[in-house]
Amino acid sequence: MPHTFDPGPVQEPFASLVADYPGTETYPATGFRVEWGPIFHRGRLDGSARLLVIGQDPAQSETIVRRILVGEAGHRTQGLMAKLGITGSYLLVNTYLYSVYGQGAGEQNATNKDIAKYRHRWLDAIFASNQIDAVIALGHLADTAWGTWKKTASGKAVSPAYQHVTHPTQPESSSGGDRTKLKAAIKAMLANWNQALEQLHPLPHPDVSGPLVPYGSNFEADERVEIPEFDVPAGLPAWMRSPRAWSKRVGKTANAKRRNITITIPSGVV
Amino acid sequence: MPHTFDPGPVQEPFASLVADYPGTETYPATGFRVEWGPIFHRGRLDGSARLLVIGQDPAQSETIVRRILVGEAGHRTQGLMAKLGITGSYLLVNTYLYSVYGQGAGEQNATNKDIAKYRHRWLDAIFASNQIDAVIALGHLADTAWGTWKKTASGKAVSPAYQHVTHPTQPESSSGGDRTKLKAAIKAMLANWNQALEQLHPLPHPDVSGPLVPYGSNFEADERVEIPEFDVPAGLPAWMRSPRAWSKRVGKTANAKRRNITITIPSGVV
Repeated sequence: MPHTFDPGPVQEPFASLVADYPGTETYPATGFRVEWGPIFHRGRLDGSARLLVIGQDPAQSETIVRRILVGEAGHRTQGLMAKLGITGSYLLVNTYLYSVYGQGAGEQNATNKDIAKYRHRWLDAIFASNQIDAVIALGHLADTAWGTWKKTASGKAVSPAYQHVTHPTQPESSSGGDRTKLKAAIKAMLANWNQALEQLHPLPHPDVSGPLVPYGSNFEADERVEIPEFDVPAGLPAWMRSPRAWSKRVGKTANAKRRNITITIPSGVV
Repeated sequence: MPHTFDPGPVQEPFASLVADYPGTETYPATGFRVEWGPIFHRGRLDGSARLLVIGQDPAQSETIVRRILVGEAGHRTQGLMAKLGITGSYLLVNTYLYSVYGQGAGEQNATNKDIAKYRHRWLDAIFASNQIDAVIALGHLADTAWGTWKKTASGKAVSPAYQHVTHPTQPESSSGGDRTKLKAAIKAMLANWNQALEQLHPLPHPDVSGPLVPYGSNFEADERVEIPEFDVPAGLPAWMRSPRAWSKRVGKTANAKRRNITITIPSGVV
């Protein structure tokens, strides 16, 4: 059975962009996990993207797969895009190339001009080579990133539909392990997502047409969607794309934890 | 400062080959770590390879980088190739796509026809699209793999220089933690490598010309060579290419260990 895979940023203009990424001179190592390297994107780089999603920053699964939004936030985002009938014609980039070390660093660098400079080169390239119908920002940092670029000359030249939605793992980060709070936060987030979907649906060029099916008060099983094989490098195992968790940062001290990623294949695979 | 990276198998004939890899129907899960996915190659796929190296199977660092021979065996091999003045014009493939689970499985499948079938498609494609001057087999399983292909019609049609050398981590696997045995095994291996180098040097088209500098009785620091940035995917951190170890399989039971890869960034990086 033939497999599909994502070639990654091997064609221009993206090949030159990934060869020229900023390092610690732009992203302070105190606030970003620069030691794990930058992670650039997920989705189409061949000019066929119709929906642009802007996320926040990569976590540990993204660091292994070298594609963004492949963990819990990614599975939820995949489901959100599917509600709009977008099953392949998407391109996802983040506000930050590197994983944020403490949310404070994320907040403090929301308007960092040097960080924005490189991000703007990506947004310029994306809009120059794709016909983007709609943009979704995940969380307020992505909203700021979009708003900042929108004020540039290239940003002013385009007018896709736009929605800023609650970040897909905001419920987890805001509820601090409290199940009741988590449940309420997910419900609130999905209400927020439903509002955005009502504004965006129907998109002019979906991959799959159909009526809008709104979220209920929690995610249904089929609303956390597997990452497609055609989004990841050749040969990656299927469990790395499944909605089951498989990576953690483990360590007894802050330094040990920062230096660690522990991968455990979900049970039942081996 | 611009970075380099390896685009991977995105052009034909290799793009079709990596889309059509064998799975558990060919590689039994009892003998191979099929659950981590296949890992195909390292080096040039653009037709510029002059030296072909055949290794045995990928280990844990290779599973993360998704390129073969990037761990200890890889650093030693990189140094071996450098002795021949080959610093970029190489292509490395393995006898097995998947990590061997117990050396017994490696031995038992040395002449497995289904496994050979896919490997032969790679060797056919490599020789059809490159001018290979020399082939080095690392270990006896690679030697068998080469000998098997050499008897095919495409194998008979080419006659590169050929040397079978001791596998670069044979000293570790044969000495069972005994330091005296390890030292003797490394010395014996390097004597074996020197013999092969004398046969192969000078190659007709080295990247760097110069006299042959043989190994002494142990590796000098500069004889374990960093994996070049242009051999790995875009954005990978430098420590993943350094000769310092950074990955282990950890677990209290055989199953737990098989399901785990633990990454720890070498000290001094963070």
